[in-house]
Amino acid sequence: MRSYLRALAFAVTAALGFAHAPTALAQVDPLASWNDGPTKQAIVAFVSKATDEASPGFVPPAERIATFDNDGTLWVEHPMYTQLAFALERVKALAPKHPEWKTKQPFKAVLDNDLKALAAAGEKGLLELVMATHAGMSTAEFETIVTDWFAKARDPRFERPYTELTYQPMVELLAFLRANGFKTYIVSGGGIEFMRPITEAAYGVPPEQVIGSSIKTRYEMRDGVPVLMRLPAIDFIDDKAGKPVGIHEFIGRRPVAAFGNSDGDRQMLEWTGAGGGTRLMMLVQHDDAAREYAYGPASGLPDTKFGTFSASLLDEAKSKGWVVIRMKSDWKKIFAFEP
Amino acid sequence: MRSYLRALAFAVTAALGFAHAPTALAQVDPLASWNDGPTKQAIVAFVSKATDEASPGFVPPAERIATFDNDGTLWVEHPMYTQLAFALERVKALAPKHPEWKTKQPFKAVLDNDLKALAAAGEKGLLELVMATHAGMSTAEFETIVTDWFAKARDPRFERPYTELTYQPMVELLAFLRANGFKTYIVSGGGIEFMRPITEAAYGVPPEQVIGSSIKTRYEMRDGVPVLMRLPAIDFIDDKAGKPVGIHEFIGRRPVAAFGNSDGDRQMLEWTGAGGGTRLMMLVQHDDAAREYAYGPASGLPDTKFGTFSASLLDEAKSKGWVVIRMKSDWKKIFAFEP
Repeated sequence: MRSYLRALAFAVTAALGFAHAPTALAQVDPLASWNDGPTKQAIVAFVSKATDEASPGFVPPAERIATFDNDGTLWVEHPMYTQLAFALERVKALAPKHPEWKTKQPFKAVLDNDLKALAAAGEKGLLELVMATHAGMSTAEFETIVTDWFAKARDPRFERPYTELTYQPMVELLAFLRANGFKTYIVSGGGIEFMRPITEAAYGVPPEQVIGSSIKTRYEMRDGVPVLMRLPAIDFIDDKAGKPVGIHEFIGRRPVAAFGNSDGDRQMLEWTGAGGGTRLMMLVQHDDAAREYAYGPASGLPDTKFGTFSASLLDEAKSKGWVVIRMKSDWKKIFAFEP
Repeated sequence: MRSYLRALAFAVTAALGFAHAPTALAQVDPLASWNDGPTKQAIVAFVSKATDEASPGFVPPAERIATFDNDGTLWVEHPMYTQLAFALERVKALAPKHPEWKTKQPFKAVLDNDLKALAAAGEKGLLELVMATHAGMSTAEFETIVTDWFAKARDPRFERPYTELTYQPMVELLAFLRANGFKTYIVSGGGIEFMRPITEAAYGVPPEQVIGSSIKTRYEMRDGVPVLMRLPAIDFIDDKAGKPVGIHEFIGRRPVAAFGNSDGDRQMLEWTGAGGGTRLMMLVQHDDAAREYAYGPASGLPDTKFGTFSASLLDEAKSKGWVVIRMKSDWKKIFAFEP
């Protein structure tokens, strides 16, 4: 009789979809790559409070919106943004069709690997590179180009696909939030259509939860088939003060949690923090040159052109109770491929 | 023993969350306000095919995206778009603060109830009205204005809140699709921030699944608190060829089902239909002057300025297999408040 009851109990729990779940869950740490300490505790405390119906800080499931910057927050942004590496490699790939680029800046700088001349071309030069490599094709064609590039491209230092350079602790955090009823969004200064082909596999974030910078598109009929053509004109820059604008436009709700790593995320965290009730704002600080990179210039770290974390951002974080994640001490592991 | 087993079976099904559910479900028609016939059959056949894993037409849950126009597809758009009624009433409410409007068109036309002069002001005049009533406040302030207006405003013919003028068969269709794993989106030429305060209650569609026309916003600090200010400048027009653009920008996936009622929805249906696999495209035809309104000019119905359904749209629907919903014969009931 006892074994019959045990079998029945098993059948019922299995039918309920979580055979011996409470025990199993207690044994697996959903944030296994985080070192124990106040940073990890801040995450767990936030989620406990937000999901506890008896708590005055309870957040109804529909309002559990969490927004994540991408470059430097979810994956590596050094020695340059991945999308810039893509643009430079595309210029080289397209060069045979553009003989004029051999003598025309900023293209010449790219073809000559002349980073000094490229830097001298400034933002205007960068915009020219983006338009030459990101516009002039349909959205479907661009998706194929991006997907093919990610399959072949390798990061120069780690010699791995860029999609393997995601931060394992942040991937766990995304999953942990989703397991607790949060909807996770990416809100990046990067191109929305550059990210969408990979976010589901890399982060479990579907395309409709990706917000980013964009160029204009136009609906056209091509041989009787409708296409969206990518035009060489900026539509929206999802950075700095653009992040709250993009969040409001796409989501129409204020997030209750926001994660960034640079001055470009300041307004997203301010906007998130200005809502009432339970909140969590976090900034990743890159202070681990051995395992990843170290830059600031906050906390005396070297200055950078990609992902500036200024002293004034650190001051604001301190005064507003934003939690600074220190890669070196808070993360047991940075990449999934580490032993 | 038999009663013990019955009690156990009941406990198990209750624990599973659907006590005797299969029986109960079979008795309740999720599309009860639709008359039996080919239109209703087209919906049921589409959903059966899309959700049948054994079918070659199976659509994976992540790709089950359905987009709905709002005005004339989900709720009444005559005698004028609800948002236009809002703009006109707001001009009257704001008039005491704008004495110059007494002599300045198009405001004078609104205050004099002079629809002829208003029509003469054309699109430029309309834009002026929209900017005067929709811009110059924060997004939070605008949300309050809209919410308060919906609570008090009444449709002149039905003498009911506008939110009760939703089409019951379409509300059932939205719920039926969601119950089958579809994500339902609104894709409307109407203002995104005018719709969002009511779509959850009216349609079960959360703000993050509403796409619409928008004006620009700017992030600002007001007494140390961040706000998004609504600026008098068009950001995006989500109509006609803008609908596929908006869908691609916000969702990043092509819908597998799309529902509209006018020439403004043509490109959305074309874009949806041009994808491979299982598809459903439908157009609501307003042919019931007794219960709602009748206009076309397709099918010999009277012409209209709000929600034109042209003969060429009907031709395209026929040639491409889009299903025309005829309100008069396909809908048992139009509004939930009907007896």
